[in-house]
Amino acid sequence: MKKTLQELADYVGGRVVGDGEILIYGLNNIEGAADGELTFAVEPYIEKARATEATAVMLPESVLEFPKPAIHVADPRAAFAKLMTLFTPALQFPSGVSDKAHIGQDVTLGKNVTVMPFAVVDDHATIGDNVLIYPHVYVGQYAEIGDGTVLYPSVTVREHCVVGKNCILNSSAVIGADGFGFTTKDGVHTKVPQVGNVILEDDVEIGAHVGIDRAAMGSTVIGRGTKIDNLVHIGHNCRIGANCLIVAQTGISGSTTVGHNVTFGGQVGTVGHITIGANSVYAARSGITKDMPEGYFGAGFPLQTHAEWLRLQANILALPEMRKKLSALEKKLAKYEKQD
Amino acid sequence: MKKTLQELADYVGGRVVGDGEILIYGLNNIEGAADGELTFAVEPYIEKARATEATAVMLPESVLEFPKPAIHVADPRAAFAKLMTLFTPALQFPSGVSDKAHIGQDVTLGKNVTVMPFAVVDDHATIGDNVLIYPHVYVGQYAEIGDGTVLYPSVTVREHCVVGKNCILNSSAVIGADGFGFTTKDGVHTKVPQVGNVILEDDVEIGAHVGIDRAAMGSTVIGRGTKIDNLVHIGHNCRIGANCLIVAQTGISGSTTVGHNVTFGGQVGTVGHITIGANSVYAARSGITKDMPEGYFGAGFPLQTHAEWLRLQANILALPEMRKKLSALEKKLAKYEKQD
Amino acid sequence: MKKTLQELADYVGGRVVGDGEILIYGLNNIEGAADGELTFAVEPYIEKARATEATAVMLPESVLEFPKPAIHVADPRAAFAKLMTLFTPALQFPSGVSDKAHIGQDVTLGKNVTVMPFAVVDDHATIGDNVLIYPHVYVGQYAEIGDGTVLYPSVTVREHCVVGKNCILNSSAVIGADGFGFTTKDGVHTKVPQVGNVILEDDVEIGAHVGIDRAAMGSTVIGRGTKIDNLVHIGHNCRIGANCLIVAQTGISGSTTVGHNVTFGGQVGTVGHITIGANSVYAARSGITKDMPEGYFGAGFPLQTHAEWLRLQANILALPEMRKKLSALEKKLAKYEKQD
Repeated sequence: MKKTLQELADYVGGRVVGDGEILIYGLNNIEGAADGELTFAVEPYIEKARATEATAVMLPESVLEFPKPAIHVADPRAAFAKLMTLFTPALQFPSGVSDKAHIGQDVTLGKNVTVMPFAVVDDHATIGDNVLIYPHVYVGQYAEIGDGTVLYPSVTVREHCVVGKNCILNSSAVIGADGFGFTTKDGVHTKVPQVGNVILEDDVEIGAHVGIDRAAMGSTVIGRGTKIDNLVHIGHNCRIGANCLIVAQTGISGSTTVGHNVTFGGQVGTVGHITIGANSVYAARSGITKDMPEGYFGAGFPLQTHAEWLRLQANILALPEMRKKLSALEKKLAKYEKQD
Repeated sequence: MKKTLQELADYVGGRVVGDGEILIYGLNNIEGAADGELTFAVEPYIEKARATEATAVMLPESVLEFPKPAIHVADPRAAFAKLMTLFTPALQFPSGVSDKAHIGQDVTLGKNVTVMPFAVVDDHATIGDNVLIYPHVYVGQYAEIGDGTVLYPSVTVREHCVVGKNCILNSSAVIGADGFGFTTKDGVHTKVPQVGNVILEDDVEIGAHVGIDRAAMGSTVIGRGTKIDNLVHIGHNCRIGANCLIVAQTGISGSTTVGHNVTFGGQVGTVGHITIGANSVYAARSGITKDMPEGYFGAGFPLQTHAEWLRLQANILALPEMRKKLSALEKKLAKYEKQD
Repeated sequence: MKKTLQELADYVGGRVVGDGEILIYGLNNIEGAADGELTFAVEPYIEKARATEATAVMLPESVLEFPKPAIHVADPRAAFAKLMTLFTPALQFPSGVSDKAHIGQDVTLGKNVTVMPFAVVDDHATIGDNVLIYPHVYVGQYAEIGDGTVLYPSVTVREHCVVGKNCILNSSAVIGADGFGFTTKDGVHTKVPQVGNVILEDDVEIGAHVGIDRAAMGSTVIGRGTKIDNLVHIGHNCRIGANCLIVAQTGISGSTTVGHNVTFGGQVGTVGHITIGANSVYAARSGITKDMPEGYFGAGFPLQTHAEWLRLQANILALPEMRKKLSALEKKLAKYEKQD
């Protein structure tokens, strides 16, 4: 695939400044772009774009001088998005249920559903309209998948679990595995049956290798619009609010309740059975061990406010020097005492 | 599904106190229960149950006064478990091997085995009695699965690995991936063949996305009755004792030996080639870097006894204040020195 | 399988010292070996091998005295490797595409390709020569898999991604899941389309449950010869150099660039949008939050040089004692001040 700069400008209704005959082989962002590629820039990135290695840049009309060939348009972001569909062929999926898929008994299938080869929709499951199910997905008995949801390859949705509308579950996500619950007697651990389920509300996105365990009883709930990154663990009976962001490798222990609009950075951990207030941010690697109020900006383990934590970091690095000073002070004072 | 409180009482041989005609739509625990649901309580949770939002509560005979309709029975826990089977339809699996599954050559299948569509049991594998194999499971060549074991969707058990009796492997667990072993020469890493296997003894439970690597040579072993939570990594040639609990996102590096009855909290890490004594507990996020004795209760990184670690946490938070005090002392002492 | 020591010696052209009639049932390393097994030793492990529980040991010709039956050969490592192929039956795979696999339209298949049951190679994908594809693998539309690469069960390679030659992808690895990119307005997170891909260069090994996210635009790149352990997260638009080692449970946040020959220990974390110089080592649990130079040996969070970090560890453990001393000094000084 290659196009001249002029062809691309024509395609989005833009105006070329510079050589319109140069060839463009691909699109990329300012930092990643290489020779032969087109990138785009809007404020405040116009300055940065002057140093890009891209061959040409798509710019707002307002930029007057630029060191490289450019396409000027009213809305560079929108025009660039249009070009992306030109360079990246859209995926085509045959609508309908592949005759190599397995659909169980008493299954309800919505309109315009795609079920690809070797996917399994088990007995009594319900699949909404416009759902896209990739190969090797397992939808368990009595599970429900809402309209417009995409299940990528090797996703598991266990029995009785409910996935809302317009959710995206990336590959190998596991919804509704058994929670980690045991009673211990004489050192032997006996399984507590995990008979609840998981509910993902609408517009939830789940990363690759995310595990959200089914409740022992009742439901583990992920609130509407919450987005979860790769390799996150959500224990049984957790209730995560709406519009949260949970970054990669974070673990939320069982029966923890999280309010709306909470962001957890990467590799955060929490104990179980606590309540974490809404509208909060916890920096990467925070360790949360007790109930937390709303509107908190926390960091560290032990957890502090982010401001306290920043200060602490500097002090921790000063520790060896502090120890030396302390030792020097002791000696001096000992000398004084002797003198007395 | 809905039942009157009286119907539920009759089903478990209990006695209603309050309005027997109220309708119950589901079961839940004390905290999670909402209007229309029944929960249960035994000591020491009776007091807490007085504030539940459940419509009714199942209680021991001994409770005399309670603010909500109740079913009184001799053993609320057992009676509640019986009701759970009433409200949650049991899963039905057709016994036998699906004609959409793939069974290789020279495979031994026990009695009453269920192999669901698109599962693969590869050549020379052995499957015990009463084994349940979900879709998209792969059992490798010469692998063995013990009686009564359940393999959830997308589990991989690689060649020559051995899974004991009555084990549960949650979705996407990987048993016997190649260990991470390389020799490096002139900056190039060359793979050391990983020709050993993994042995899971009886009664082991493995969480979703757990990876237990095959030994370079010999076996990686998980002892009888050990339970492993989601997203745990066990390196090649580890030997984990019996009845351990390993909480989510913990990583045990290669060739580490762990005694019986050891609990690792979440996100613990260990170096490789160490021995960790039996009957020990390591709190979440412990970092274990050397051989450890039996009966240890550890925490932190650097690792300490849990008691020392608790004390340290307080001192760490006091660090900025200590630094100020130290600075003040230095100034005072400097003043004295000048005076001399 | 059992062989006499003499039979094994004959097989590798070695010389028995001691009883050649003893039976050997298996092979193992020095530490793991038990009665009935053969191990091997070269310097500097000869001394350690004297205490092995193996029944016999394979040794260099140069070892004159040894307390156990032995096979002496010129190169014990090579001879032992030859025996391993004798004791562990090699896996046999039928060449060709299983008639239970699914091959999409316009797929290019190389020579001597094995595609096992229930694997899917989707439309427009290209598979090189001598590629081995296990069951339940999904190769997406327009994806490319290089010559000699092995894809273990339940691997996902999403659309447009490129895997080089002689790569190994362990079970449930996910290449090209959507990156974690959202714009937030009024608390609602809207997905940024992730239309780039992932490129794994040649000789890359990927552990079980590794997630490497596709670029928002352009490519996420893993350099030639880099080896990645289990449960590692690589965010979108990262560029990892050649011959790196990334140990289990490490997370590299999006748009981070890593030079060649960098080793990350287990459970390391980095922020996004930074550059980490080549020829460096970061110890387990390092937390990297800013651009780093080449040739760095780092540890800790906050990050320091490894030498500084070692010193800091000792000082941290001394903190409670320091606090007491500080308090004692304050009291003494207060006494002096009073006296004045």
